[in-house]
Amino acid sequence: MSQGKEMHLGNFLLSRLAELGAKTIQGVPGDYNMGFLDQIEDHPQVRWCGNANELNAAYSADGYARTAFPGHNGLDKTTTTGRGKVGVVVTTFGVGELSALNGIAGCFAERLPVVHIVGTPSTSAQGDHALLHHTLGDGRFDAFEEMSRKISIASVRLGDFKDDATGAVTAIDRALTVGFRQARPIYISLPTDLVNMTVPASSLEKKLSLDEEADDADAGKACLEEVVSRIKRAKDPIILVDACTIRHGCLQEAHQLVNESGLPVFSTPMGKGAIDETHPQFGGIYVGTNTEPAIKELVESSDLIISLGALLSDFNTANFSYRTPRSNTIEFHSTRVMVGHATYQGVSMKNILPRVTSAISGDLSKRLAETKKQLNKYENRLPSREEEGENAGPDGQAISQEWLWPRIGQFLKPSDQIIAETGTSAFGSLAIRLPGSKIPSFHAQILWGSIGWSVGACLGISLASREENLGRVMLFVGDGSLQLTVQEISTMVREGLTPILFVLSNEGYEIERKIHGPQRSYNNVATWDHEKLLESFADPLRDSSVGGDRQNFKESHEHDIKPSETKYYAVKTKKQLEDLLNDEAFNKADKLQLVEIYMRRGDAPKALLGQAKTTQASNRY
Amino acid sequence: MSQGKEMHLGNFLLSRLAELGAKTIQGVPGDYNMGFLDQIEDHPQVRWCGNANELNAAYSADGYARTAFPGHNGLDKTTTTGRGKVGVVVTTFGVGELSALNGIAGCFAERLPVVHIVGTPSTSAQGDHALLHHTLGDGRFDAFEEMSRKISIASVRLGDFKDDATGAVTAIDRALTVGFRQARPIYISLPTDLVNMTVPASSLEKKLSLDEEADDADAGKACLEEVVSRIKRAKDPIILVDACTIRHGCLQEAHQLVNESGLPVFSTPMGKGAIDETHPQFGGIYVGTNTEPAIKELVESSDLIISLGALLSDFNTANFSYRTPRSNTIEFHSTRVMVGHATYQGVSMKNILPRVTSAISGDLSKRLAETKKQLNKYENRLPSREEEGENAGPDGQAISQEWLWPRIGQFLKPSDQIIAETGTSAFGSLAIRLPGSKIPSFHAQILWGSIGWSVGACLGISLASREENLGRVMLFVGDGSLQLTVQEISTMVREGLTPILFVLSNEGYEIERKIHGPQRSYNNVATWDHEKLLESFADPLRDSSVGGDRQNFKESHEHDIKPSETKYYAVKTKKQLEDLLNDEAFNKADKLQLVEIYMRRGDAPKALLGQAKTTQASNRY
Repeated sequence: MSQGKEMHLGNFLLSRLAELGAKTIQGVPGDYNMGFLDQIEDHPQVRWCGNANELNAAYSADGYARTAFPGHNGLDKTTTTGRGKVGVVVTTFGVGELSALNGIAGCFAERLPVVHIVGTPSTSAQGDHALLHHTLGDGRFDAFEEMSRKISIASVRLGDFKDDATGAVTAIDRALTVGFRQARPIYISLPTDLVNMTVPASSLEKKLSLDEEADDADAGKACLEEVVSRIKRAKDPIILVDACTIRHGCLQEAHQLVNESGLPVFSTPMGKGAIDETHPQFGGIYVGTNTEPAIKELVESSDLIISLGALLSDFNTANFSYRTPRSNTIEFHSTRVMVGHATYQGVSMKNILPRVTSAISGDLSKRLAETKKQLNKYENRLPSREEEGENAGPDGQAISQEWLWPRIGQFLKPSDQIIAETGTSAFGSLAIRLPGSKIPSFHAQILWGSIGWSVGACLGISLASREENLGRVMLFVGDGSLQLTVQEISTMVREGLTPILFVLSNEGYEIERKIHGPQRSYNNVATWDHEKLLESFADPLRDSSVGGDRQNFKESHEHDIKPSETKYYAVKTKKQLEDLLNDEAFNKADKLQLVEIYMRRGDAPKALLGQAKTTQASNRY
Repeated sequence: MSQGKEMHLGNFLLSRLAELGAKTIQGVPGDYNMGFLDQIEDHPQVRWCGNANELNAAYSADGYARTAFPGHNGLDKTTTTGRGKVGVVVTTFGVGELSALNGIAGCFAERLPVVHIVGTPSTSAQGDHALLHHTLGDGRFDAFEEMSRKISIASVRLGDFKDDATGAVTAIDRALTVGFRQARPIYISLPTDLVNMTVPASSLEKKLSLDEEADDADAGKACLEEVVSRIKRAKDPIILVDACTIRHGCLQEAHQLVNESGLPVFSTPMGKGAIDETHPQFGGIYVGTNTEPAIKELVESSDLIISLGALLSDFNTANFSYRTPRSNTIEFHSTRVMVGHATYQGVSMKNILPRVTSAISGDLSKRLAETKKQLNKYENRLPSREEEGENAGPDGQAISQEWLWPRIGQFLKPSDQIIAETGTSAFGSLAIRLPGSKIPSFHAQILWGSIGWSVGACLGISLASREENLGRVMLFVGDGSLQLTVQEISTMVREGLTPILFVLSNEGYEIERKIHGPQRSYNNVATWDHEKLLESFADPLRDSSVGGDRQNFKESHEHDIKPSETKYYAVKTKKQLEDLLNDEAFNKADKLQLVEIYMRRGDAPKALLGQAKTTQASNRY
């Protein structure tokens, strides 16, 4: 122990989380985690944001970890890591942690570094296999950790290090490093009696080692030669950017490749937002058979697809319908590169892309001229009355899916953060041409696809956006999905956050209706009055008239943030939406605003109709 | 296949669930379960109740399975099984099922037979390890089932029986039987392509075999002799009834023992409601050191504790503080009996209790006379002004915990169903003397203790109560716990249910404050306007003004139940609560009524204060 100085284990962990960008820590108090919550409230670098429930907390941590901002994610001021923030969620043993699992599993699937810290009974109670509350009643104290292991990249039981401070510190550092490097969730269980265990203060002296590991030199050289030769030989290569480009902090490298190659660039749904959509080389979104015909033709006729960070899930590819042969594809991944049918292990996208870029940049002007000839201008074009069809209603004033999304696209400003719920929102918003933005600003859970996710994620993205001075935050969610996680709107109000919540009201689970059972009762939901709902969450802090412990009340609210004002708008016609989107006060987004957009039951974005058809076929009953 | 008749596998499963008492099946639609939901909507014996989210659905299934009623649970018309209904929750693969796990784990801990059916991708998609939405993206299709295995007593992957109809039917029957007999959750995964697989219709001819298995004859005989001899020798034996008496359907046997032995009977917190609390032999609730002194003395001075269905968790025993030596205890369990330090395996409470009863009934009059001398009348006694102290406010009009619970006890009628949330409600309501009731009517999740549970459970208990014509349903929940699962109130409205929801408003998580951090910010919650909240859930069914698919709309709402009317009451003084409880219209409970009771922050029931002290000590930080 250098100089003999000591710190508490809980505080060591918090300092490490702060090192990974966490400024806000979320979760729900429970009787096995409150000693750690004391440390969070008292720590100089982090603060606590309590959630209404644990699933919402996990979704929020997902959103928080998803947010990209200058200085991270390989943008502008590149950091050593090139990533965003780590999300942190704190729950209590059993009852709390299990409620969070769906949200954590989503982080595993979608590649997000989230740390799940669970307060557990003391090591002695666990050793006795005591029949405690929040247990299964059969003495199994390891069941919950084993469940979480299935959806975590690393797991630390701090109780194993009761008499080994160095071991505890090393285990935490190793897990955090693995989680951050691989962009996956990790699980840490913290028994009550170890929160204040002392560890050497010097443990923090050496920062976590997060730099990209060096490539295998020989493999890197061979791979580079092959990649460059393929690109130089190709007649009309294109670049296709996918999710892991964002998740593994390669945005700057991707933009350099685009800028210095002059090649056309496209995004997948999960990669949407990675590339500035106003970039003159940007050609649109490619989703296999679900792609706009002109874009589809360009991508599929190319003789070389340069694919960055591909994550080829069904909804990201219109059920695996790419018509791009593997022999014509180079795939760059976080730890390997695949050239046609050959794989180069130990070569990372982050290391090799700059070398590729500099090797091919000589062809820039020629390639750029060709790209300009090929690409149509990618715009937010409103549909004609005919294109909208019956969804615009008899007088054309109804808000159709076909019309809504490009209109929203026109409304957006650079750095606005868009969150689109799985369902009509995630499919519809693919049609938005995002404003020229230096940071990825589009968020959807396309692989995991858990309905209700977006409301929690909106909280986390709002918190991160405030911390990093990003733009406005906008949620698009249907009336069905909203119901799963609605109470988290009240946390946004309490935290003084001011996202714009667009609620698409169409009387139920429209995405499910498109897949199965359009006339079935099970796809209906209860109808809510969203105006009153919003008001109910915005009750001013009550000083209960029946008295009570005023000193505690005062102390406990001392550090409260001023809650947001709220405002509700019902929008039933194009004119009403136009007026609202043009309203200056609305545009300021200095209140929490909920815009309920009434839409036609049965209307759905084209992209969803296409996807639903293929999903139906594969879910044959 | 007898007569060559066939049925679909999904329908076979539904008929079996109906055989186990399930009339309502709950859950959330998802794209891998909708074919099965079609069968639910079309099945003659069951109906579908969609929930706002999966955790709430699991809590509701817990409540549904918890409800006891005449004709089951060994009450009045004894059935072969002597149990209540099986709860059923249907979710979709990954995203849906993981959200339900906390609720299912609670059923494991608290011993409730709940069937979790998960719609999964087709067997061919699973065989291909396809990168589908709702997967972890790494081809592991077994991860979620493995997670559920930790909290289930049996698990069936129907995909394993793709070409084996008999195997599928046998596996379902075996799992349902195990789950029902052991009162534990089971897990069934149902791939889309097996929903309509044909199985012989004759599979239903033989009913599930749920009768209690016969005891080991020799062990039973030896045990009986020893038990009877001990009881006969004892000077002042008492009976102590716990949770598993209810869960294993032994209520009738327990009542017979009480009635024919003449002995005093007490309940534990988890056994509260098992014995009619107006019974002249009923002495009150025993919770170790947390017991009222007079009751504590009676129990602990007894020279023989006859314990039925004990579940000795920390909150059920005030941290294991029984002062009753094992040598003076006979414990009856579902599959074994422990007499002092000797265990008789293979002897069940259900089989042996009637034999014990008949062997000792000769001493009835003598024992009864002694019991009457010993017991004080157990009543709902309101506290004096002094006993209430500062919690009654300066004018004595504030509603204190000390006053509230006996006053509620006076208000209750036989067969009313009480649901008490973990927290001040579960601890406070132990002080209620329940009205004379033929059925257990008190529900609290004392072992698992997941906050938010009670709101979901209230839905399930309301559904079961309506099906079996029980009494009014009353929920007691704090403002903090309510926030976790609040949206399920809207399902109650939509289903036309009319529970009375008592919301105890005291500005946060009071139980946590008593354990740790009374002045900490993390124990505060957002303040809500509960009146507007209730109104927001009671929006009349909207026929959207923007048009839409009216034919589908009409068809899909054809079988809707008429939604409940709702009414809100704010109650800040004793007088206001008195007036309300005496109001005839309120007593009818023909609307969904929400009563917000303002209580003093810092006030907590005595039982909670005692528990918090011992919990604090064992959670040393």
